Amino acid sequence: MSNRFFFYRCCITRALGLGPGLCLGLAALVSSGAIADQLRSPYEIVDIAPQSDWRAMDQDNSLYIELASGTVVIELFPAMAPRHTDNIKALVGEGFYDGLSIYRVVEGFVAQGGDAHDPREPRAGRRSLPGEFIQRGELPGTFTAVDDEDDFAAQSGYINGFPIARDGGLFWMVHCPGAFALARGDDPASGGTEFYVVLGHAPRYLDRNVTVFGAVRHGMEHYQQLNRGVDASGQLEPQRRNPIKRIRLGSALPIEQRLAIDVMRTESASFSELVQSRSRRPESWFVYQPGYVDVCGVPVPTRVGEGR
Amino acid sequence: MSNRFFFYRCCITRALGLGPGLCLGLAALVSSGAIADQLRSPYEIVDIAPQSDWRAMDQDNSLYIELASGTVVIELFPAMAPRHTDNIKALVGEGFYDGLSIYRVVEGFVAQGGDAHDPREPRAGRRSLPGEFIQRGELPGTFTAVDDEDDFAAQSGYINGFPIARDGGLFWMVHCPGAFALARGDDPASGGTEFYVVLGHAPRYLDRNVTVFGAVRHGMEHYQQLNRGVDASGQLEPQRRNPIKRIRLGSALPIEQRLAIDVMRTESASFSELVQSRSRRPESWFVYQPGYVDVCGVPVPTRVGEGR
Repeated sequence: MSNRFFFYRCCITRALGLGPGLCLGLAALVSSGAIADQLRSPYEIVDIAPQSDWRAMDQDNSLYIELASGTVVIELFPAMAPRHTDNIKALVGEGFYDGLSIYRVVEGFVAQGGDAHDPREPRAGRRSLPGEFIQRGELPGTFTAVDDEDDFAAQSGYINGFPIARDGGLFWMVHCPGAFALARGDDPASGGTEFYVVLGHAPRYLDRNVTVFGAVRHGMEHYQQLNRGVDASGQLEPQRRNPIKRIRLGSALPIEQRLAIDVMRTESASFSELVQSRSRRPESWFVYQPGYVDVCGVPVPTRVGEGR
Repeated sequence: MSNRFFFYRCCITRALGLGPGLCLGLAALVSSGAIADQLRSPYEIVDIAPQSDWRAMDQDNSLYIELASGTVVIELFPAMAPRHTDNIKALVGEGFYDGLSIYRVVEGFVAQGGDAHDPREPRAGRRSLPGEFIQRGELPGTFTAVDDEDDFAAQSGYINGFPIARDGGLFWMVHCPGAFALARGDDPASGGTEFYVVLGHAPRYLDRNVTVFGAVRHGMEHYQQLNRGVDASGQLEPQRRNPIKRIRLGSALPIEQRLAIDVMRTESASFSELVQSRSRRPESWFVYQPGYVDVCGVPVPTRVGEGR
C-alpha cells in the first residue's frame, strides 16, 4: 500500500528556491520500497538511478576542447554523420585546431570556432564535405519518445543520449542547447572545419540545415563565459577572440587526463520516468502542472566520477 | 513585379557562417520599392524598421542591476503584476538589494539573487505577498500572436514587447530566456524579494507557478558570465557569490546614467513581419524551411542609442 516514495525536504533552501530541486543532495530516502503509483521528481530520479541506467561516455568519439577557462567535452554520435565524424577526428588528430580560436559568439545563440581568421591547410582531414543533415532508414539505437506533438517533426525523443527528431522515414539530431554542429556557407557541401555549439534557447529552425552530430557532456559553463560579440553577427575583434589551446580525442589522452563521464541511458527506465516527471511535475511546489515537455526540456543527465 | 527586396551578401562571412544573418551591417539595399511578395530575413527587418516601430523603454519601470561585470537592465510590465511591481520598486528605492548577491546560478536554467544569505528587513517594501501568477480579463495592450499551436497554452504571442500566453480568459508572462520573476517557497504567497532571471532554454513548465513580470533589455551577457554553482542546486559558496553593487530604477538615475534603450513595438508591422520571417526563413541559405516558430524563438529586438 503505502509503497510511496518520500523524501525530506530541506526547508531553508525551499523557502528560497524555485522548487524541491533545490533539495538535491539533502534529500533522504525514507521508503526503501519506492516506485509506486507516484512519480518521483526529476532530481530524485537522477539521484537514485541505478548504475545499470548509466553508460560510460565513448572516449573514442569525444572531443576535449581546452579553452582558457577550462575543458569542454563533447561526445559525437557517429551514426548521425559518419563522414564528418571521421573527418573531425582526423582534424583533431593532426592538431588542426590547436592555437585557433572561437571567434564568433552570439548571445543566446551559438559560439563558433575554427580557422576562419587563421587559415590552415588540413593534412589528414578535409576542409569541406557534403552535408549529413538527415539520415534515413533504420534507427541507430533504441528511440525513447519525448514528444509526439513536436512542432518541427512528427516525433522527437532520444537515441543513445542524443536528441533526435523523426518524420516520414527521416531522422536528424536536434538543435538543443549544447548541440555540436558544423557551420557552412550557402553551399550545403561547404561545411567541414568550422564548428559551433548551441547556447541558449533551442534554435530548432536550423534543424535539417546543417550537420549536427554531438552534444556537450561537460563544461558547458566555459562556453557560456566566452567573450561575446557586440553586434548581431557576434564576430569578435582579434584581441577578444577566445583561444582554443588544443582539441584532443578522449582516447588519445593519457588515461589520467580523461574525465570519467557517465551519461544516463536514454533507453533506461530512469530516463523514461524522467521524461514523465519533467512533463507532469509531481512536486507539491507546483500549483499548475504543465503536462507537456519538449525534447530540449529533458537534458540528458551526466555525472563525473574518478579519472579513467 | 520585380518589387523585390535584394541585398548584397558578404561572401566572406557567409562562407564562415550559419546564414545570411552574418551579413547584418554589411547589407546594402538595392531596391527602394521593397516590401513585396518576398519576406525579408529577420536581420534585414530589424535593420530597416522605421523609427515609428520602436518605443523607448519605460525608465520608470526599469531596474538597473549593477554587477561587477557591468549593468543589466530589466524592464517590468506592471500590468502583469501590479502589486509586485510596486513592491520591488519600493525595495529598490530603499536600497534593499545594494551589497547583496546573486547566490544561486544553475547552468542553462536560472540565476537567483536577493538577501537569502544576508537577511535584511525591508522598510518600505514587503518581504512577501500573494503571487500574481496569472491575470484575467482584458488584455493590457495589443496582442500579436506568434503561435496558435503553443504547447503550454491556447495561444502565445507578445504584448508591449513581453512574451505572453493566453488560455480560456487567462493570460500570463512566459518563461523565455531573459524573463524576470520572483522565486518562492511552497506557499504561493511566499515570494517577494528573491528574484531570478531565466538563462538558456525556456523553462516553460514554470509558467503559471510564479510571478513573471519583466524581461532583460540589455546586458544579458553579464548574467551569462556569473559564477555558477557546481551541483544541480546551483548554490554558491560565499566567496563565489556574485555581488550586486546596487539596483536602481532608471527614472531615479541621473539622465546621463540612463541607457537610451529602444524596444521594437510588438504591435508594429516590422514585428509581425519578423514573426513570419522567423517561421518561414526566406534566406536562400536554408535548404529546409521550418514553417514554425515558438514564442521564445522571436526575441524582441532592442537597440541602444545615446544616453537619455
